[in-house]
Amino acid sequence: MKVLKGACIFGQSGGPTAVINASAAGVFLEAMKQDAITEIFGAEHGIRGVLEERLFDIRKEDLKELELLKNTPSSALGSVRYKLKPVSVDDSDYKRILEVFKKYNVRYFFYNGGNDSMDTCNKISKYLQSQNYECNIIGVPKTIDNDLFGTDHTPGYGSAARYVATTVMELHQDTHVYDTPLVCIVEVMGRNAGWLTASAALASLKGYGPDLLYLPEVPFDVDDFLNDVKMVLKRKNKVLVVISEGIKDFSGKYISEYLVSLKKDSFGHAQLGGIATVLAGIVSDELNQIKVRPIEFSLLQRCAAHIASGQDIEEAFMAGTMAVRYAVEGNSDKMVVFKRDPNSKEYKVNYELLNLEYCANTEKKIPVSWIKDDRSGLTQEFYDYALPLIQGDNKIVLEDGLPRFANLKRVFVKK
Amino acid sequence: MKVLKGACIFGQSGGPTAVINASAAGVFLEAMKQDAITEIFGAEHGIRGVLEERLFDIRKEDLKELELLKNTPSSALGSVRYKLKPVSVDDSDYKRILEVFKKYNVRYFFYNGGNDSMDTCNKISKYLQSQNYECNIIGVPKTIDNDLFGTDHTPGYGSAARYVATTVMELHQDTHVYDTPLVCIVEVMGRNAGWLTASAALASLKGYGPDLLYLPEVPFDVDDFLNDVKMVLKRKNKVLVVISEGIKDFSGKYISEYLVSLKKDSFGHAQLGGIATVLAGIVSDELNQIKVRPIEFSLLQRCAAHIASGQDIEEAFMAGTMAVRYAVEGNSDKMVVFKRDPNSKEYKVNYELLNLEYCANTEKKIPVSWIKDDRSGLTQEFYDYALPLIQGDNKIVLEDGLPRFANLKRVFVKK
Repeated sequence: MKVLKGACIFGQSGGPTAVINASAAGVFLEAMKQDAITEIFGAEHGIRGVLEERLFDIRKEDLKELELLKNTPSSALGSVRYKLKPVSVDDSDYKRILEVFKKYNVRYFFYNGGNDSMDTCNKISKYLQSQNYECNIIGVPKTIDNDLFGTDHTPGYGSAARYVATTVMELHQDTHVYDTPLVCIVEVMGRNAGWLTASAALASLKGYGPDLLYLPEVPFDVDDFLNDVKMVLKRKNKVLVVISEGIKDFSGKYISEYLVSLKKDSFGHAQLGGIATVLAGIVSDELNQIKVRPIEFSLLQRCAAHIASGQDIEEAFMAGTMAVRYAVEGNSDKMVVFKRDPNSKEYKVNYELLNLEYCANTEKKIPVSWIKDDRSGLTQEFYDYALPLIQGDNKIVLEDGLPRFANLKRVFVKK
Repeated sequence: MKVLKGACIFGQSGGPTAVINASAAGVFLEAMKQDAITEIFGAEHGIRGVLEERLFDIRKEDLKELELLKNTPSSALGSVRYKLKPVSVDDSDYKRILEVFKKYNVRYFFYNGGNDSMDTCNKISKYLQSQNYECNIIGVPKTIDNDLFGTDHTPGYGSAARYVATTVMELHQDTHVYDTPLVCIVEVMGRNAGWLTASAALASLKGYGPDLLYLPEVPFDVDDFLNDVKMVLKRKNKVLVVISEGIKDFSGKYISEYLVSLKKDSFGHAQLGGIATVLAGIVSDELNQIKVRPIEFSLLQRCAAHIASGQDIEEAFMAGTMAVRYAVEGNSDKMVVFKRDPNSKEYKVNYELLNLEYCANTEKKIPVSWIKDDRSGLTQEFYDYALPLIQGDNKIVLEDGLPRFANLKRVFVKK
């Protein structure tokens, strides 16, 4: 086997998670062990850092700080939402990437992100091949939405799910404190996939779950919703609703679109959020005198490293580690995927590879058969699926009672 | 010394905290050790449980579950907002309380709450004295607002402060992930006192604090605010604002009152909240094309037991313990207060007593000299004050990666 020798670049893309930096630690610490990898660069703000030649020299960082990346939320190198145009439309970005890769003899490229980032990887890889430039490109998955195709789950999901489940348990306690009627509507992220919203159902296992749960996989009807709320209110005087930002009506139109202005991000995705407040207003109009409280988990659910799942951190780290190993072994055009070992009695994950083209731009939804018809939650299949992902001590390092985040020097390579 | 012999009642009142149940554990476990205390009752929904004779028999509970109260947020017995009318206006509630106390030979009454609850304690005590009914009444402080007079701080504050500081650190990471401009406005509870909002400044100690901090102790001007935001935005492209729900203009009028409808709770307090959204709208109107994101910590900040301060839990527990000991020793009409030991080099708290009449209905504010003029944060005095309160492992018990809350039997005493 011919081993490519050269520099590697790692970049972070898309919305951050609590553990995206754990994958960075995995890539960096493994790259240091590989003789084939000469230099280790971190691209500032993902592919933008490549285009603008803003590359951090990771060998200049202290090992201790790189280890601390495991408990540092968000993207330590900076992230980006930047969509490459098809080569046929405009190849200037691709030419520039090739130029930079050649200049630094970059033979390994690792990109950490979701659907769109895998599409970016795929396009770059195809272009480099067309130019006969040898470079092994491996995608490292991440997204709290858990909507990546071809992998059992994605790094970032377990931690966000643990945050959602724990916080819903706490909210259940809080919303039941008075004996006055209350409707509390909690909004969870996840775009068109209900995985993260569904994790609120894990709180039900402990007896502190939501009364009503609305996922984007099932069409949403405002009148049905109002009836659901009224029925629960009548029965128990309290309604704890957990709802996905991405709920849609029978025609596929976002509910939020009816009442709040809908902007698009640069990938063309709708910028959602605010549905809890909209629905709270509707409930309040319908049920006079009843206290209604909307709560949006907002950014909190994706950066809550203090309650990250230890399992998730370890898997995110291993995803980065395995990306490097697979690349050095000669693999390219692949994403690291997680396969749950069906022969293991205990939960065990294997790290495999999948062609990038299969991962790009496909959304994985919750099987509708896992969703109970009465909006009360999920079936046992979901519990079996999700529970192992939120386990494990995250070994967070504290200083003065507060998290000790990694403190990187961020030394740029001279252009 | 004559020791009163009889039953005790403990009740929880007002907004819950992460550690109000730790005080319950303190009261119950200490009461079990005291020969003077015959029966131990928990009143459902505070004073309402007394009036309606809905009393839990705490001796029926498992000790293990009572211990777990230390990590169970909110009010395990149920809370209430119920204001007793002055005796001169209507003495029917007082007569009823006396009737219940006589029926069960209640000689000890412990009430856990804030300003208003101490007022309730004081009124009951004065009435019972006027009727020559011997009963020792001790208030146990609690409030995330930390606005109780006569005590160095209040149980509940340290945990909420740790939540706010940690979450602001995480949000700082998240909001700095892209290089596009962003204004993020975080709203924190605390009513008319800035203590909890100020705890966001603890994140600054680690380099991840807010750029701008607005407390209710300093009059708020919308134009000044907009100028502050613009200046920071120009300098660093990102603005992380943390703002108290209780900010007021120079005339003392709530800013939220200008733009959102203001309801009153049954104590006559304004029901605040929503100011972040209102200000985000104003910033958005002023600065076109700039992304503005309001985040309200809402109930999350007062029930986040998963990140409670170990110090706070211990102190809340001790506040309950000491209330029982002091009462059995013959004290009454007092609240347990915390005094920081000035002679100890390490942080050390002593548990003393203060007359209820001094505690009732007085709000303790942050000294204005501790607040920096440029809205950038607090002085060293605040750090020295607040930092010890957020320390310590909370020893949370997990089951399946989720918190294990106390599971009380809640067996009612037969009427």
